[in-house]
Amino acid sequence: MSLLAVRRKVACNGLAFVNSIICIMKTLVTGCAGFIGSTLVDRLLAAGHDVIGIDNFSTGQRRFLDGALSSGHFSLIEGDLLDDVTLGKAIKGCTVVYHLAANADVRFGTEHPRKDLEQNTIATYNVLEAMRAHGVRKIAFSSTGSVYGESAVIPTPENGPFPIQTSLYGASKAAGEGLIAAYCEGFGFQSCIFRFVSILGERYTHGHVFDFYKKLKDDPLRLPVLGNGKQRKSYLYVQDCIDAMLLAMEMAPDKVNIFNLGVDTYCEVNDSIGWICNALGVQPALDYAGGDRGWIGDNPFIFLDTKRIRALGWSPRLGIQEGVLRTVAYLRQNEWVFELRAS
Amino acid sequence: MSLLAVRRKVACNGLAFVNSIICIMKTLVTGCAGFIGSTLVDRLLAAGHDVIGIDNFSTGQRRFLDGALSSGHFSLIEGDLLDDVTLGKAIKGCTVVYHLAANADVRFGTEHPRKDLEQNTIATYNVLEAMRAHGVRKIAFSSTGSVYGESAVIPTPENGPFPIQTSLYGASKAAGEGLIAAYCEGFGFQSCIFRFVSILGERYTHGHVFDFYKKLKDDPLRLPVLGNGKQRKSYLYVQDCIDAMLLAMEMAPDKVNIFNLGVDTYCEVNDSIGWICNALGVQPALDYAGGDRGWIGDNPFIFLDTKRIRALGWSPRLGIQEGVLRTVAYLRQNEWVFELRAS
Repeated sequence: MSLLAVRRKVACNGLAFVNSIICIMKTLVTGCAGFIGSTLVDRLLAAGHDVIGIDNFSTGQRRFLDGALSSGHFSLIEGDLLDDVTLGKAIKGCTVVYHLAANADVRFGTEHPRKDLEQNTIATYNVLEAMRAHGVRKIAFSSTGSVYGESAVIPTPENGPFPIQTSLYGASKAAGEGLIAAYCEGFGFQSCIFRFVSILGERYTHGHVFDFYKKLKDDPLRLPVLGNGKQRKSYLYVQDCIDAMLLAMEMAPDKVNIFNLGVDTYCEVNDSIGWICNALGVQPALDYAGGDRGWIGDNPFIFLDTKRIRALGWSPRLGIQEGVLRTVAYLRQNEWVFELRAS
Repeated sequence: MSLLAVRRKVACNGLAFVNSIICIMKTLVTGCAGFIGSTLVDRLLAAGHDVIGIDNFSTGQRRFLDGALSSGHFSLIEGDLLDDVTLGKAIKGCTVVYHLAANADVRFGTEHPRKDLEQNTIATYNVLEAMRAHGVRKIAFSSTGSVYGESAVIPTPENGPFPIQTSLYGASKAAGEGLIAAYCEGFGFQSCIFRFVSILGERYTHGHVFDFYKKLKDDPLRLPVLGNGKQRKSYLYVQDCIDAMLLAMEMAPDKVNIFNLGVDTYCEVNDSIGWICNALGVQPALDYAGGDRGWIGDNPFIFLDTKRIRALGWSPRLGIQEGVLRTVAYLRQNEWVFELRAS
């Protein structure tokens, strides 16, 4: 049982004295209303932590925080990480930061290059500076397999070849990683940097399953597919992702700890289309845009070597197909997600 | 002879017509008043190019541009790359950008983290956006061997292991590289990214030779040395550096071309101290601070694999010792450099 879980237990028993001594131990989650962020908040609360969440609600959803807000151990701060004052208020008294806030839209990066710079790179700098100002020294960071560009080594290990960035999203996350590592060296921080494959599961609000589901809702007879459908990708179920993050933050020994997070296989986009269509009971004609990439900067083969996180004892409980099916089930029960994005 | 050299020759012969057709072919050099920037400007002018230079004179020196300003083919714009309007004016009509402006102070990064973010990462973003706005598609970028952090592979090739950044300077330059590569993929740019070892030679205004010379001027009997003096570093003479940049920009075939620039050997700091002291005719007691690093984030062994640039036919003309001695000779003839920095 962690110290915080002990405190919660002790506090519940009415020992306010103990509680008052260690009640300053709080966790900040940036991007707390997002798909992964809100799931992490719930897991941290369940594990006995006090959690502060900050979100600018650009893509986050308030209702993802309903449970957290009713827990009595979660405080929500609405604000942007570019606003130093609000960020300072959020971070004050915390001992660890899970920095998940980001512009996670890899596909449309070239339509708004400033967004990746500001929301990913500069926001990460602001988080680090706020940590420094408030004496917070431990950070978890949601990076991405996109930082590898198109790696010459697949499955790609964390120390694979020095990458050449192919997307503004990947570049902005790699820049965030670099800042974090430099702060670890320069200011004695400790970090866990997680390079995710695409994450699936409950509260999923963007990505290929979302897009295909939405298109099939509009027209179950015809499905436009970016590229040739043969792009090979890897996916991870969100609770498996959170398991890995929590474990690594507990156990990782180094100043800078970098972990790929993914399953040990991949699928073709066509496989995923088959699972989704089958789950929805539709048989659309597939209308391929053609080419081996879905968009400029799309990586036609993403598959990460996850030996390092597995060496800590983690392994994912769900495979790709199960993750896709859980996501379809979630979307089916939460079609409000599509309404919100359309507005 | 390049097209621009032909134009200059033709123009000199009075054929103003030809000149007017192609006079829009101009080169922008950012950081034009710096050590390397001003040397590049002179070389570009000598090769027949029209050059626009921009500098905020934070460390640049006006007198480095005396020759350029009297050439009739150089325009100076005083301004900061964070000022989009001034940058837009500078870049208009250019066909290629040599982006050399930077906060090049690796040692004191932790004293002002925002400077590296702004002057290196955000400034590079601004240059790329200005290029996009004005249809400029070719860029040379002065990166650094510091982007490798402490590489597990030495001599370090361009595709060495995915680095973990150890300095804010390295992180900010790596971020600049990532942005440039992403713009190449997303917007059809072409780039040459140069990862320099430390550069030496005429107009050298900061670095270890500068520091040791200055200290020995103040006290020739005692020389404080950061670390244990056994740090192994590699250096390159500035004209060799410019040779490599010009050659690569002429010949590099890919969308993103990354080149290490350095000599094929290294020296110990103690070696360099010996050469400097010998040249100055002093025999100080060496007062080591101790430890294997000069400062937080200092890399105790920098040595780059330069096979890739050598494959284009380049090789450096001067070795490290000759570079150090030329630098000492320059400083001896230009002690005003020390006065300026002291003010």
